[in-house]
Amino acid sequence: MAAKKPIAVVIGVGPGLGASLARRFATGGYSIGLIARNESNLEPLQKELEQQGHTVLSVKGDAGDVSSIKNAFNTIRTQLGNDPEVLLYNPSGFVYKSILDLKPEELQNSLNISVVGALAASQEVLPAMVKNGKGTILFTGATASLRGSSKFAGLAASKFALRALAQSMARELGPQGVHVAHVIIDGQINTPRQVKGQPDKDIDSFLNSDAIAETYWQLHVQPRSTWTQELDLRPYVEKF
Amino acid sequence: MAAKKPIAVVIGVGPGLGASLARRFATGGYSIGLIARNESNLEPLQKELEQQGHTVLSVKGDAGDVSSIKNAFNTIRTQLGNDPEVLLYNPSGFVYKSILDLKPEELQNSLNISVVGALAASQEVLPAMVKNGKGTILFTGATASLRGSSKFAGLAASKFALRALAQSMARELGPQGVHVAHVIIDGQINTPRQVKGQPDKDIDSFLNSDAIAETYWQLHVQPRSTWTQELDLRPYVEKF
Amino acid sequence: MAAKKPIAVVIGVGPGLGASLARRFATGGYSIGLIARNESNLEPLQKELEQQGHTVLSVKGDAGDVSSIKNAFNTIRTQLGNDPEVLLYNPSGFVYKSILDLKPEELQNSLNISVVGALAASQEVLPAMVKNGKGTILFTGATASLRGSSKFAGLAASKFALRALAQSMARELGPQGVHVAHVIIDGQINTPRQVKGQPDKDIDSFLNSDAIAETYWQLHVQPRSTWTQELDLRPYVEKF
Amino acid sequence: MAAKKPIAVVIGVGPGLGASLARRFATGGYSIGLIARNESNLEPLQKELEQQGHTVLSVKGDAGDVSSIKNAFNTIRTQLGNDPEVLLYNPSGFVYKSILDLKPEELQNSLNISVVGALAASQEVLPAMVKNGKGTILFTGATASLRGSSKFAGLAASKFALRALAQSMARELGPQGVHVAHVIIDGQINTPRQVKGQPDKDIDSFLNSDAIAETYWQLHVQPRSTWTQELDLRPYVEKF
Repeated sequence: MAAKKPIAVVIGVGPGLGASLARRFATGGYSIGLIARNESNLEPLQKELEQQGHTVLSVKGDAGDVSSIKNAFNTIRTQLGNDPEVLLYNPSGFVYKSILDLKPEELQNSLNISVVGALAASQEVLPAMVKNGKGTILFTGATASLRGSSKFAGLAASKFALRALAQSMARELGPQGVHVAHVIIDGQINTPRQVKGQPDKDIDSFLNSDAIAETYWQLHVQPRSTWTQELDLRPYVEKF
Repeated sequence: MAAKKPIAVVIGVGPGLGASLARRFATGGYSIGLIARNESNLEPLQKELEQQGHTVLSVKGDAGDVSSIKNAFNTIRTQLGNDPEVLLYNPSGFVYKSILDLKPEELQNSLNISVVGALAASQEVLPAMVKNGKGTILFTGATASLRGSSKFAGLAASKFALRALAQSMARELGPQGVHVAHVIIDGQINTPRQVKGQPDKDIDSFLNSDAIAETYWQLHVQPRSTWTQELDLRPYVEKF
Repeated sequence: MAAKKPIAVVIGVGPGLGASLARRFATGGYSIGLIARNESNLEPLQKELEQQGHTVLSVKGDAGDVSSIKNAFNTIRTQLGNDPEVLLYNPSGFVYKSILDLKPEELQNSLNISVVGALAASQEVLPAMVKNGKGTILFTGATASLRGSSKFAGLAASKFALRALAQSMARELGPQGVHVAHVIIDGQINTPRQVKGQPDKDIDSFLNSDAIAETYWQLHVQPRSTWTQELDLRPYVEKF
Repeated sequence: MAAKKPIAVVIGVGPGLGASLARRFATGGYSIGLIARNESNLEPLQKELEQQGHTVLSVKGDAGDVSSIKNAFNTIRTQLGNDPEVLLYNPSGFVYKSILDLKPEELQNSLNISVVGALAASQEVLPAMVKNGKGTILFTGATASLRGSSKFAGLAASKFALRALAQSMARELGPQGVHVAHVIIDGQINTPRQVKGQPDKDIDSFLNSDAIAETYWQLHVQPRSTWTQELDLRPYVEKF
């Protein structure tokens, strides 16, 4: 397995954003490590990318479980033969419930997936990034990163917390050459399920996952003199 | 034990803000429930208030442990004979560490104390508040509620998350008559330890815990037509 | 005319908030200077307060005209015989128009009323406040202070600008003993016109102008160790 | 003069960002209209771009003067033979003064340049953009867009106001196909004067104007399904 290419790891890979990120960074010259709870779901994506000549490794890993994340990164480092240069962290727990019904364990679970997992994954890639004075870590936020809406406490608490983590990391690690940015996705992504479920909607009223991935790529290639720490993305018709 | 007075519960009671809150709400006509990890520390405060004729109940409870919180509220309801009308939630975990050294368990612990405990405590008082269409829940935030500073990831993540919880609760519960507000404490409180440790500092460069408590009281007595959801508090010389 | 009492000046006095502020600060022991574009409208309020034994001076002044503001303050200082200790600044220009139709002069006018007038008025009271190391300046913001909504560019630009002014003043003047705070009014105030125009609405779904004024008063009496720079106010049922 | 290429107008063109924006959009296939107070300063840039085969028109225009802006756009439309498809608005007034010394006229001037001019320029390009359901307007913000620092009231008030204008326009015009975004430049740009004045500083501690321009270009080419409304840019070592 060729390991000369730098490695980008995508955590939280479904049919939408995660797959587009893998494609974009593969095209950009990266070997790709994919981490998802059900790695069998990753097979089609892996095959697609391998047929195009890219190196892809799919690993089972649960973002809400620190030791599972550590194991996944160990596998990636061993099998791809290097430390990742890019980390793209997407997972988030979603709960829509009245504050009276939200179980403390559900809140903990959402926090574990969104922010504790983000810390654990970052710690897997940071030592090499800091040593090399180079690296990119991009976190995926949501509307709920900026606003605690009614019945969205579980999501908002964990997304606010992730944003705090991103800021804190950016302030500490930026001067060490590691670019940490936070992307606020405000709207629905054009996953097959979303698009099929709302057949009358203008396709451009969904965020295009390839276009999101292009923005992540552009963040990654920014020179260190001119870094973005946060941006938002939404469809032109989205209310905000 | 007289139980005719309404009940205010203060969680997270040290020699600073918690004690001042207890005094202010006792003076305002409330029976006071105090919850702290070490309830023996609460004895002097309890005695002080009881000597003034106030009703005070001190209960051991760990904000980072959901079942401990539940037990503490059960005790308060049983012994004070009623559901609390006011909840004042102060606890927060503090960690100052490089992102490379912050252990995932430390982050979890901080999140448990700041936000999961806040949810659990709120759920103990909310059913009665919603039923009565009346109640006040005030959360204590910090500088780190708005800013993820370098090496403050643990505190910032949990304080951002608490702020999200407060917003989400305010949006859901406000229309049901429950006032949920978030107070951002930006600076050092005039606890004996802080003041003694910096003897050359102007006493007004520390937040006065009684003045903070007065602001909490003023939030509590706002009529429902004119509620504050968030405010900040800092000394006049504090940089911000 | 007795001039021993300290002076509070209210600029932008209509039947709602301005009148309530005048009443609250009069009750609190202040002589009141009122500045409005049409000072004849102030006669009933002045009479009401004078009958209660308060000292009130009504002065014609246009918040959008710097020299008019200067003249008004000259009159107040001369006739009430002292420098104001409190400034309460409410005026704002309102325009609801498509960005295509908003005239640059309308935007300028809104900026003049909201922010240039606020600067001019502040400069009339600040030299004495700084000299005395004491004073309170409170600015009235709106929903549009935090959000530029569609067709609200005129209001939002001027209210954002006022918020910037308030922050900048707070950071410079706080350490000199002058308390500068910004109050975000989010909702409709219970003016006779609003209430009559929506007879089916719960009265508590309007902000109560007396309750707002009480919050301004509480801000004013905060000790300098424990100052609020910004808070919001809204009815319990207000969407936000 | 060839007018088949779409037109991008840059307002506020100095040796730094404005010039880089002109180069980037020229390279991207646009004819360039340049508007500056002193159009003779634009000659070198115009020559440079013309030698590379680009179409450039330099026009004298004062961002703080609405009729001057109107005239400049009339000239551009007439001479380049079309309506602009892109507007890049950079001008801002800078004043660093104590709030006691900031003249109301200086504040007005800063507001005129930053926000009234931005409205006037936008209104010159919007009718065609709305008609075509297509166009990009990018506003240049600063650190002071988010924070009113001590002695920066003039800059902060006008930059806050510009941000409000950008939000209001984005919310109204987005659904009509016009992309309005706001870029927060947080740090010093690598203009010759800045770099020469601080010879010991790492060149990457200055924002690179070409890299900023690349980000503006990437904002411009985002598909309407996936638009950014706001992002920040700063050097890796910048404190924030």
